[in-house]
Amino acid sequence: PRPVRAHRGTQLHTLGWQQEGALRMLQNNLDPEVAEHPDELVVYGGTGKAARDWASFDALTRTLATLKGDETMLVQSGRPVGIMQTHEWAPRVLLANSNLVGDWANWDEFRRLEQLGLTMYGQMTAGSWIYIGTQGILQGTFETFAAVATQRFNGTLAGTITLTGGLGGMGGAQPLAVTMNGGVAICVDVDPSRIARRIEHRYLDVQADSLDHAIELATQARDARRPLSIGVLGNAAAVFPALLKMGAPIDIVTDQTSAHDPLAYLPLEHTMDDWHAARERDPIGFAAAARASMAVQVEAMVGFQRAGAEVFDYGNNIRTEAKAAGFADAFSFPGFVPAYIRPLFAQGKGPFRWAALSGDPADIAATDKAVLELFPENESLQRWIPLAQERVHFQGLPARICWLGYGERDVAGERFNDMVASGELSAPVAIGRDHLDSGSVASPYRETEAMKDGSDAIADWPLLNALVNTASGATWVSIHHGGGVGIGRSIHAGQVVVADGSALAGQKVQRVLTNDPGMGVIRHIDAGYTEGEAVVEQYGVRIPMREH
Amino acid sequence: PRPVRAHRGTQLHTLGWQQEGALRMLQNNLDPEVAEHPDELVVYGGTGKAARDWASFDALTRTLATLKGDETMLVQSGRPVGIMQTHEWAPRVLLANSNLVGDWANWDEFRRLEQLGLTMYGQMTAGSWIYIGTQGILQGTFETFAAVATQRFNGTLAGTITLTGGLGGMGGAQPLAVTMNGGVAICVDVDPSRIARRIEHRYLDVQADSLDHAIELATQARDARRPLSIGVLGNAAAVFPALLKMGAPIDIVTDQTSAHDPLAYLPLEHTMDDWHAARERDPIGFAAAARASMAVQVEAMVGFQRAGAEVFDYGNNIRTEAKAAGFADAFSFPGFVPAYIRPLFAQGKGPFRWAALSGDPADIAATDKAVLELFPENESLQRWIPLAQERVHFQGLPARICWLGYGERDVAGERFNDMVASGELSAPVAIGRDHLDSGSVASPYRETEAMKDGSDAIADWPLLNALVNTASGATWVSIHHGGGVGIGRSIHAGQVVVADGSALAGQKVQRVLTNDPGMGVIRHIDAGYTEGEAVVEQYGVRIPMREH
Ligand SMILES: NC(=O)c1ccc[n+]([C@@H]2O[C@H](COP(=O)([O-])OP(=O)(O)OC[C@H]3O[C@@H](n4cnc5c(N)ncnc54)[C@H](O)[C@@H]3O)[C@@H](O)[C@H]2O)c1
Ligand SMILES: NC(=O)c1ccc[n+]([C@@H]2O[C@H](COP(=O)([O-])OP(=O)(O)OC[C@H]3O[C@@H](n4cnc5c(N)ncnc54)[C@H](O)[C@@H]3O)[C@@H](O)[C@H]2O)c1
Repeated sequence: PRPVRAHRGTQLHTLGWQQEGALRMLQNNLDPEVAEHPDELVVYGGTGKAARDWASFDALTRTLATLKGDETMLVQSGRPVGIMQTHEWAPRVLLANSNLVGDWANWDEFRRLEQLGLTMYGQMTAGSWIYIGTQGILQGTFETFAAVATQRFNGTLAGTITLTGGLGGMGGAQPLAVTMNGGVAICVDVDPSRIARRIEHRYLDVQADSLDHAIELATQARDARRPLSIGVLGNAAAVFPALLKMGAPIDIVTDQTSAHDPLAYLPLEHTMDDWHAARERDPIGFAAAARASMAVQVEAMVGFQRAGAEVFDYGNNIRTEAKAAGFADAFSFPGFVPAYIRPLFAQGKGPFRWAALSGDPADIAATDKAVLELFPENESLQRWIPLAQERVHFQGLPARICWLGYGERDVAGERFNDMVASGELSAPVAIGRDHLDSGSVASPYRETEAMKDGSDAIADWPLLNALVNTASGATWVSIHHGGGVGIGRSIHAGQVVVADGSALAGQKVQRVLTNDPGMGVIRHIDAGYTEGEAVVEQYGVRIPMREH
Repeated sequence: PRPVRAHRGTQLHTLGWQQEGALRMLQNNLDPEVAEHPDELVVYGGTGKAARDWASFDALTRTLATLKGDETMLVQSGRPVGIMQTHEWAPRVLLANSNLVGDWANWDEFRRLEQLGLTMYGQMTAGSWIYIGTQGILQGTFETFAAVATQRFNGTLAGTITLTGGLGGMGGAQPLAVTMNGGVAICVDVDPSRIARRIEHRYLDVQADSLDHAIELATQARDARRPLSIGVLGNAAAVFPALLKMGAPIDIVTDQTSAHDPLAYLPLEHTMDDWHAARERDPIGFAAAARASMAVQVEAMVGFQRAGAEVFDYGNNIRTEAKAAGFADAFSFPGFVPAYIRPLFAQGKGPFRWAALSGDPADIAATDKAVLELFPENESLQRWIPLAQERVHFQGLPARICWLGYGERDVAGERFNDMVASGELSAPVAIGRDHLDSGSVASPYRETEAMKDGSDAIADWPLLNALVNTASGATWVSIHHGGGVGIGRSIHAGQVVVADGSALAGQKVQRVLTNDPGMGVIRHIDAGYTEGEAVVEQYGVRIPMREH
């Protein structure tokens, strides 16, 4: 264990910028500003790691330092296992993380193999070296609320009130994401320290003294079409029904309490103070009580839905738990992916991101300006970038995330490459994305839940995605198992391409950033979604079964 | 449905030989001489298919006809789903077949998705377009017995007697494989028509009238060190114990009755005639009786082992069934992969194969000659090729299989490419392999059973194999799930590279045929096997964890 920080500036520590990009992004994932537990090589998401162990980390960096421009390093679950001669168009690094044969794809076997030192949990962007800190969560949440706005509220949340629960690590992005979309948010958490923390970090605006106070603040702001986020201290299983009963004018309801783990959800009959003692005394009884409270909360959510509100599950599994506790109508409202994200995926839209390898925030400022100029008609982008500039504190290498689609990503990438070539940027840029993207993931409990044609569990698509990115000039490509929702539940792929300003990199960027979102377009066309048809038409995406 | 046969000759039906190779090998997989049920697009191995349905087949061939030399077709479980611009070094086709997310990786879900028209079973070389008929089985069996000879009998089976069961589709290769290695085989089958068929096809030499007769024939041939294969009509569960009791001088024992499916194994209390009626009347009772008989047979096998014979399970799961029936010592003898094949895998050796795209048997004759000249010190190769020339009847495009290792495959491939360039061969050659290869499969019930380090279920390796072949210039690359041992039980990858005589193809061939077996070398080094160390030393295979 030792502190790791990415190299900055223009001096190379490797034989070329493609290799340097991989080296710096690996290092950056372990920067104490970026990683949750850098000493254990854990980047984020439970135990999502960037390298299997410190000996592997040293071998990775040592190998990258001498890797030639026509060689490729192979990484098996965070450990470098080979160096092979390939060619200039080939990736410099190929990674496979946490993959298990189906019948063995469970946490027990995984932990056994991990104990033996044979694997590591790669999560999504941890083991594929393109995590950029909490900006990703903020932007994903922003994009979800933007999609809610587009679908239901004429493109803005101005004049609406959102009710949600949970102000934790992920859920804490909700108030800011709502206000960035122009709306008012009432956010309920049982833990006063969480509310205080979000206010301190300027993710949450104010705390209300009471429910009545919260409604008063909310309606005033809503009527003035003024963004405002309001924290409410209380148990969501009590507050949600109370607000419903009071007839509070709520337009949108969701929840990000940690309902996926019943021991991390406070039941009505317990207080913050006895939470830990109670669940240790009787974990089974505590979990049952938590589920029963979730049922009460979900029943209130369905009540809001029946009263006309837009209601959705935000990926914390609260519907399943509520149903298990006996509330039969728990699945009355949809999950957020089928409801809002899938139409974006169908157009090849997803969490595009890039990092300035120079370490210079001015490089990100210049790219921000460039994308704003390139896509004047992309409204959510036009709203997001200035807000991000104002609110997002860089962690590690300066980086930016924004959702771009097919026909946009390649344009942005080529522009960045030109800016490197012309010196507008001081050093190359690493361009990648989350694995939670349009054509790169099979995950029947989340990204591919309830696919129109029933193809939720088909995993050919992320594998084709990895293969085609490898064949298109990506700088590194990864295939992972179990990210986001756990071992046995997902297969997904990542890619990063380094825009180093060379003509070759320009071609690589063009192909990768076309073909990668292209997988999302063809995957959704194949499943019968129509949102991508306009993209197919406009850009001439080729669908062999349609050609005659 | 219509008869399909590969184009022959030198005239192109596509824009280049790389595409033409893919087209012809797809067609060849469905040639009635090659495929088991061509009308249903089934090539071999249960329902292993080459294309999802006829509309998909038409779209595949149509797309290949116009595919450019810098474009790539994407195939999702036998259906073409995309055409993307890549580059000259990229594969022309990328395939993913039958892949499912872990928790859904079972036959029920697979069949449901297959019914919906969303997937197909790709087996190994069916969905990846490099099946070449029964030569593969013959050679694999030959190679296994050659490995037995090397490990235990000074490199030849001359002077030894092998006892085995089953003369079916696969098992029927055993008598010929033993005699090709110089030995004597006694082969037991309950079905007289199977014995007659193998004699007709010259895979089996004679049928004995009785057990005594069989022993007499066998010992005479053994003492004269003369190869001979002898069929015995009878139930293996009766014959094996009888021979043990008689003190028959058996040196090697194995079995390829269809024990993997208890309804396809005849129990002692039933006859051939009432087999079908009995299992339909009471499948559960029949299966229990079959298992009990298997236990009797396996007990005799263990008896032979205790008496000093070399005994192994030939991948039909008979040990598991015998153990389930109550024979506790069933796992006294090993599976054939850990016992004989893994040391070959550790050296990058595996079922290398190539097909003459010309359709001209003279091209295979020329390549046979070339490999014999290239590897004078490879004894099993020197024995195999002349025997294959004599005994193997080509099915579809003339093809050859032989096991070559790291440092050999690339040499053979480059030589073939030179022969295409010089006109020694009349047209290009497609060079591939089975997915059952040294570094391309994770299959804990077969290829990766009982790995030294416990890494049986780790599936990163076949995925890295597919990625690195994609990055090295293979013409098509595939990732499959469930081949050989069924859905949920394996993940494996295939590659084919077309040697078209161009300088570029020469470089591709060199890289692919180095890196592909290279995966086998590094995978086994990583797992603690030492058989590959000499290869690492001789060729300078790079292992990052060892470099300082
Ligand atoms: N689908 C997605 O993409 C996605 C993304 C992020 C998070 N999630 C899910 O959202 C949930 C929240 O994630 P997190 O990282 O913020 O978790 P976290 O544990 O950091 O925060 C959970 C918060 O909920 C509060 N809480 C617990 N019980 C409560 C109750 N009864 N009433 C009110 N507040 C209560 C806790 O005090 C805590 O502040 C998780 O279930 C996670 O899996 C899903
Ligand atoms: N591990 C491998 O690579 C590998 C390769 C090939 C086959 N196999 C296994 O080998 C087995 C045989 O495959 P196949 O394709 O030849 O099957 P098959 O069904 O074509 O042939 C099985 C033969 O066994 C005979 N038989 C059944 N019960 C018998 C009994 N009690 N005594 C004597 N003979 C009996 C049948 O008459 C038949 O001829 C299968 O279980 C298969 O899975 C494994």
